Amino acid sequence: MVKITALDTFDVRFPTSLDHDGSDAMNPDPDYSAAYVVLRTDSPDGLSGYGLVFTIGRGNDVQTAALAALEHMVVGRPIEDIVDRLGDFARELNGDSQLRWLGPEKGVMHMAIGAVINAAWDLASRRARKPLWRFIADMTPEQLVGQIDFRYLTDALSPAQALAILREAEPHKQARIAQLETEGYPAYTTSPGWLGYSDEKMLRLARQAVQDGFRTIKLKVGLRLEDDIRRCRLARATVGPDIAIAVDANQRWDVTTAIEWLKPLESVGLAWVEEPTSPDDVLGHAAIRRAVAPTPISTGEHGQNRVMFKQFLQAGAVDLIQIDAARVGGVNENLAILLLAAHFGVRVFPHAGGVGLCELVQHLAMADFVAITGKKEDRAIEYVDHLHEHFVDPVRIVRGRYMAPTAPGFSAQMHPDSVSDHLFPDGLVWRELSLTVDD
Amino acid sequence: MVKITALDTFDVRFPTSLDHDGSDAMNPDPDYSAAYVVLRTDSPDGLSGYGLVFTIGRGNDVQTAALAALEHMVVGRPIEDIVDRLGDFARELNGDSQLRWLGPEKGVMHMAIGAVINAAWDLASRRARKPLWRFIADMTPEQLVGQIDFRYLTDALSPAQALAILREAEPHKQARIAQLETEGYPAYTTSPGWLGYSDEKMLRLARQAVQDGFRTIKLKVGLRLEDDIRRCRLARATVGPDIAIAVDANQRWDVTTAIEWLKPLESVGLAWVEEPTSPDDVLGHAAIRRAVAPTPISTGEHGQNRVMFKQFLQAGAVDLIQIDAARVGGVNENLAILLLAAHFGVRVFPHAGGVGLCELVQHLAMADFVAITGKKEDRAIEYVDHLHEHFVDPVRIVRGRYMAPTAPGFSAQMHPDSVSDHLFPDGLVWRELSLTVDD
Repeated sequence: MVKITALDTFDVRFPTSLDHDGSDAMNPDPDYSAAYVVLRTDSPDGLSGYGLVFTIGRGNDVQTAALAALEHMVVGRPIEDIVDRLGDFARELNGDSQLRWLGPEKGVMHMAIGAVINAAWDLASRRARKPLWRFIADMTPEQLVGQIDFRYLTDALSPAQALAILREAEPHKQARIAQLETEGYPAYTTSPGWLGYSDEKMLRLARQAVQDGFRTIKLKVGLRLEDDIRRCRLARATVGPDIAIAVDANQRWDVTTAIEWLKPLESVGLAWVEEPTSPDDVLGHAAIRRAVAPTPISTGEHGQNRVMFKQFLQAGAVDLIQIDAARVGGVNENLAILLLAAHFGVRVFPHAGGVGLCELVQHLAMADFVAITGKKEDRAIEYVDHLHEHFVDPVRIVRGRYMAPTAPGFSAQMHPDSVSDHLFPDGLVWRELSLTVDD
Repeated sequence: MVKITALDTFDVRFPTSLDHDGSDAMNPDPDYSAAYVVLRTDSPDGLSGYGLVFTIGRGNDVQTAALAALEHMVVGRPIEDIVDRLGDFARELNGDSQLRWLGPEKGVMHMAIGAVINAAWDLASRRARKPLWRFIADMTPEQLVGQIDFRYLTDALSPAQALAILREAEPHKQARIAQLETEGYPAYTTSPGWLGYSDEKMLRLARQAVQDGFRTIKLKVGLRLEDDIRRCRLARATVGPDIAIAVDANQRWDVTTAIEWLKPLESVGLAWVEEPTSPDDVLGHAAIRRAVAPTPISTGEHGQNRVMFKQFLQAGAVDLIQIDAARVGGVNENLAILLLAAHFGVRVFPHAGGVGLCELVQHLAMADFVAITGKKEDRAIEYVDHLHEHFVDPVRIVRGRYMAPTAPGFSAQMHPDSVSDHLFPDGLVWRELSLTVDD
């Protein structure tokens, strides 16, 4: 009987703030980081499960401590007790009555729970020798519904309604799998759009993105209105009318500011406006959406749990949503959110970038295509070309599309050398930086 | 020039689960705990500031790690730089661009920020030799408005509107201070109502509460409907028609379940129904309130930040709200919530109990009476008679009323022996329990 023998944690940080990569209106100096977790087993073949929480630097130690606090719920258990009953496992972790007080189901503790749940799904799909998207797609509708905690959802989506959506997809799964393996899944890119970049660099990268096959680009906005107008118009003039341009305000505005700010940008023809205000403000997004229609409004990368997504959809507060693989309670909660979105007929444009978020979230989008909505050409997964070299199974982007992963698992495993070199504060990279600063 | 010399943290836990104190439908076995923080200074008189996050056991170590992660923003600074500009200090802590990713403004990191901000207010009011409620009450309307971060609030409450509320109170402050010092502030008690108690114990404690002068009692509900009906009817028969009975479901129900569950309880004549569902579900509370009117609905002890309170008020989702001194971003954010409630004309019944929550929140309710609403007899602060002996300035309850604190500060300081004896896992109390278990 194979058992979980350890839950190991690692505070991994990349000094990205040196290059202004990832800078936006709220986050001027991120050091892209991962609180990384490995579930080890005593399987002779070295089977392990990998997960992570993405953070942007300070506080990654707090996130790592939250991962370690879950050790007692995992270590020593037979792996069948986890990987063959992932829905129960997720409910156990979310339901711990004492840890629940630290949320409930939000913030540091919820992200830690999500990462351990994701590591369990990684373990389960590695054991099944399937990439995660395929592992999910091969579940029956009944098995998939069993993964979901419907608590607080039933006024919007019942288990029976979820089952009906999944059963409708069932006969089409094999054809969709073949289609996905041939065509891949559309990507969009944020690489040109960071606020710290010059106009020249932004336009060069935008042209490059179009040449590389991307059909949508995203620019960061929200710091100075005149800059946003200039950058958006320059971008539109450069990429032409056929490329979609989205903007991302990263929660910068109050409701009334958002409405005023977005008027002069309307003529650019935006694909969507992302995170115009607080990610907690359902009613605020609804007010903004009504005021700036038909400009589409979206949020979700900081959506803390399924209850918030439910309300954004119930209130008609968004035209589309982002999901994030490492913010909510793991695969299980993201399946709930994908089913809610399908039920409300709202498109999902998964959030990615950071450390490993592209690697993770592609599996969820692809599982959605095969097992839930059957749609992919009217949506796209975010793509940022940073830090993929640190992953054992990095994403493969071909002509602006994510190719379906073929390696078993959730693609979250990092190279051991990348982990050890970037350990904070004593890894090689940080020791060298510290010497540079001291000089 | 006096400086902050240290931010010390302590993982303090009380083994309350042994007695089922504090048990409810979601939290069957809490070990009431505090992640306790002390801001030390080099002042010759030993001036320090004290704060805490209340938790219910496991995870208190994670919360303590989050407090420690704020050290770099506090230690080494002149105290004037903090206590004379508490509004800026709160904005700095909440605004750290990297830490913000861990929320934003919710969960473990936000509670840690709140505790450090509260410790700074404790320090400021100790230095001014005033109890915190009086320190707040003695601020001018302009100074008070300067404490508040209006980001994400202005669509519901502008600085000018807040200032108008505060200016209206200004001429009445001295009379209200005298009134408060004579009359105290109404309390209500949850001591009879824990789910782990027998009917006999519940009724005995309910009778005792009425004899002690309390005019409102609260019972926990939500585990089994027949038990709730029996307990509520027994309680009503015992305390008579003039004592208000509130119930607390501690987030147990889905929206439709809440509506079904509350119908048979209507005849009891409930003062309010607390936390019927997820504390994140604004629209859910609004739906429940509409369906069960006139039974009053409330929530707030798990309200993560001012943006959620804003929406509960905007949506007409609640008849009254709870605030919690140690859940949101400290005194500053609670002042924003109190002003929002005043603006919407909604009464506040502060949440307390746990470890030190009574000691803390009484100051906020009293400041609200003096400097904001001028009302106290139509509301009450929760009171639970647990663990007050561990505090240097414990609450004083006389005939069911909180007496106004007279000692300088925020009443959050614990006895040094209480802290050291209950340190987890190596304090005396936990070592002895561990020996008992091992026997």
